[in-house]
Amino acid sequence: MHPLLAAPLRVVNIGLAGFGRDLAANGVPVVHVDWRPPSKFHDLLATLEQRTAQIDEANAEALRRILAADPVLVGVRRAGELIAELDAEPLVLHAGPPLAWERMCGPLRGAVCGAIVFEGWAPDLAAAERLAERGGVRFAPNHHFGAVGPMTGITTRSQPLLVVENRAFGNRVRCTINEGLGKVMRFGGNDAEVLARLAWLRDEFGPLLGRALESKPVPLSPLIARGLAMGDEMHQRNVACTSLLLRALAPSLARAGDPESVARALEFIAGNDQFFLNVGMAMGKSMLDPAQGIAGSTIVTAMSRNGTDFGIRVSALGERWFTAPVEMPQGLYFPGFSAADANPDIGDSAILEAVGLGAFAMAAAPAVAGFVGAGGFQDALGYTRAMAEITVARNPKWTIPALEFEGTPTGIDIRRVVESGIAPAINTGIAHQRAGVGQVGAGIARAPLACFEQALAAFAEHGR
Amino acid sequence: MHPLLAAPLRVVNIGLAGFGRDLAANGVPVVHVDWRPPSKFHDLLATLEQRTAQIDEANAEALRRILAADPVLVGVRRAGELIAELDAEPLVLHAGPPLAWERMCGPLRGAVCGAIVFEGWAPDLAAAERLAERGGVRFAPNHHFGAVGPMTGITTRSQPLLVVENRAFGNRVRCTINEGLGKVMRFGGNDAEVLARLAWLRDEFGPLLGRALESKPVPLSPLIARGLAMGDEMHQRNVACTSLLLRALAPSLARAGDPESVARALEFIAGNDQFFLNVGMAMGKSMLDPAQGIAGSTIVTAMSRNGTDFGIRVSALGERWFTAPVEMPQGLYFPGFSAADANPDIGDSAILEAVGLGAFAMAAAPAVAGFVGAGGFQDALGYTRAMAEITVARNPKWTIPALEFEGTPTGIDIRRVVESGIAPAINTGIAHQRAGVGQVGAGIARAPLACFEQALAAFAEHGR
Repeated sequence: MHPLLAAPLRVVNIGLAGFGRDLAANGVPVVHVDWRPPSKFHDLLATLEQRTAQIDEANAEALRRILAADPVLVGVRRAGELIAELDAEPLVLHAGPPLAWERMCGPLRGAVCGAIVFEGWAPDLAAAERLAERGGVRFAPNHHFGAVGPMTGITTRSQPLLVVENRAFGNRVRCTINEGLGKVMRFGGNDAEVLARLAWLRDEFGPLLGRALESKPVPLSPLIARGLAMGDEMHQRNVACTSLLLRALAPSLARAGDPESVARALEFIAGNDQFFLNVGMAMGKSMLDPAQGIAGSTIVTAMSRNGTDFGIRVSALGERWFTAPVEMPQGLYFPGFSAADANPDIGDSAILEAVGLGAFAMAAAPAVAGFVGAGGFQDALGYTRAMAEITVARNPKWTIPALEFEGTPTGIDIRRVVESGIAPAINTGIAHQRAGVGQVGAGIARAPLACFEQALAAFAEHGR
Repeated sequence: MHPLLAAPLRVVNIGLAGFGRDLAANGVPVVHVDWRPPSKFHDLLATLEQRTAQIDEANAEALRRILAADPVLVGVRRAGELIAELDAEPLVLHAGPPLAWERMCGPLRGAVCGAIVFEGWAPDLAAAERLAERGGVRFAPNHHFGAVGPMTGITTRSQPLLVVENRAFGNRVRCTINEGLGKVMRFGGNDAEVLARLAWLRDEFGPLLGRALESKPVPLSPLIARGLAMGDEMHQRNVACTSLLLRALAPSLARAGDPESVARALEFIAGNDQFFLNVGMAMGKSMLDPAQGIAGSTIVTAMSRNGTDFGIRVSALGERWFTAPVEMPQGLYFPGFSAADANPDIGDSAILEAVGLGAFAMAAAPAVAGFVGAGGFQDALGYTRAMAEITVARNPKWTIPALEFEGTPTGIDIRRVVESGIAPAINTGIAHQRAGVGQVGAGIARAPLACFEQALAAFAEHGR
């Protein structure tokens, strides 16, 4: 074979999917890029061009803060100790932007009722539902209290929370401990098994992990750097980071309790490839929070979903949410389930994509591309390359071997999203739409473009 | 940009390196394949062509046995209990084919003397050297006693040995416990610090690990499969497999001893990314041993080096070694060291390449390509593709994500090596040439073609 023939034909298909499908059917590797013609916001973008230098400077400052972050997993504490409001009244924190009980989806309602029983505010699930319906508990987003939670993201007073401190800025973010796979509260599970596990986390595992972390905190940025070279994207694949975290924690865990409780703790972590997810989420928010509130910056500082609405926050626009209806994830289902069972997109975990991980780092995790139904190795590269189109930089500390050690795409710019029509992709678990069932699959969701369009309009109007 | 322009030019350069260098200088990604014109063994290969069907059938049987292997890490035992000869006389097992004291290189002599002191056969290193010189200890290869060892590969009676059982065939292979990095016996270290660590391995760590493994043996083939999707090639990079092994072992370790000795054991494993290396080596030999002695098979069943000679074994030719002088690794050196300090290629660890890992699986481990000075991601792919030219199959259980989940190249065929002139590549640590110093770098060595040519000649003459 002539040496030059060893360079295979590879195609990036932009726009209509049909052309790409034809090539793919003929064995040509095709990466499909979700592109649309320039948006109706053309005039708005043209207006903002006069402020380009100022915006770019503000975005550079936002990026500087994100890249300067030094997130460290420092401990575990009871939620009520960390967030006083949780001890003061029956308060349930949930994923996503604000949402009233009436508009909550099935799994979120299921998790809320489970948490109400767990906290002793009602004797059973039926009573819990009546309590919630009549306004007997207050609801608020995790994000409003310096916290995040995966999927339903329920946080209540007695749960043990992981604490991540961004030592470059001194801010802290909290997240519950990942419960494992299957029927768990974050996927809407709420039966006796679910609540018993939460009680064990509260009474044995959480305090033990807390003692271990107090004696030896775990710096997270180098751990992510290693994990990206080990096939994780930290959203739907945390095999490496979970293993590296266990490796870092195991010696101090061994000194933190009696052999049997230590062995149970190690088994619990070792038995759940997604254990690291919640750590990574708290890390993501701790890195993005210092970039919030920079005048003139169009960088996204949070993306989050409550199963009904998708919300984003933008640096210059502070704590305001820009929301639109959530979309359905496209993905693969566990045996016995199908898209008909799926709940729409939910969870605070899109904070990982906001910080450049998850679908943005898909090129680091070709195995996850198959798991979420996104194709093979070339497709994984395609996702990361597409997300680089809507971000302002590459993270020099977090590199991807398969892209010759280019960094993860970092700093979503609402201008680029609106201009290109490329919606941020999000690797996600899929919950059953009914309360109490749990996880039924995994896939890729898209952030609704409407969130970015609204934010851009607000930025153009009010943005200083 | 037109979509088709997104397919970049990529070149595989075969033979003379200059053409490739010119392209590379112009920014074109080039993978250089080490190719030479067909060898002088052309006539020999032509003769063997008459037996092609028979040889291919024998090789298929060898491959079947390799792929059917079920290696399990089952325990740790004192070497003298496992290998009776070690308790019967002052016997020192070493890496590579047989070698007399007179021809041993510096680090091998250093390790031998350290082991003699460690076993109490001489009071100090000087006395140990005199004892070795006057024939006061017997030397033999690890491979002759169902064992392997990295670098100098010293095995003596009181060392604790890892035991891997291939449950598909019932055979067992033993290997010492990896001591860590830097000044260690496998790299020729022999001072008080080195011997104290060996004593701790013997007295505390080995027995503890043994108890943990007895309660929960660890199947290795699935662990390798995961490790390949996590950036390991299991020779110069064992970050993932070490972490996954620790994760699998931690709960049973926690139940196997007092908290402080358990914590020390976990710290020791967690502190050494190469802890898994010795486990992988024992696994490799346990998988290849059942393929030895198949009439008509030209598959390599062992590659090994003692720092002076490189030796290979071939299935049809049984336990006979075909040797040639070892080559110098090409690589990168730790600060303060250079090629002038380097010892030639040494160790039983090339058993990993013989089973399709190490340099053969480089495409799985782009980070290691940089560590051993072999370039970037495209270069890593090039090594695996080149090694596929001299092997008979891909391992369907051990796949590489970056090659769209193709398997690792498995079953080196001496015919293909001689015909192509492509020498097996080996990822290796580099020892200082003087006794007592330790590791100074890492690089890539080549198996000498002369070993394969001799084996092919012997096969043509005697090979049934």
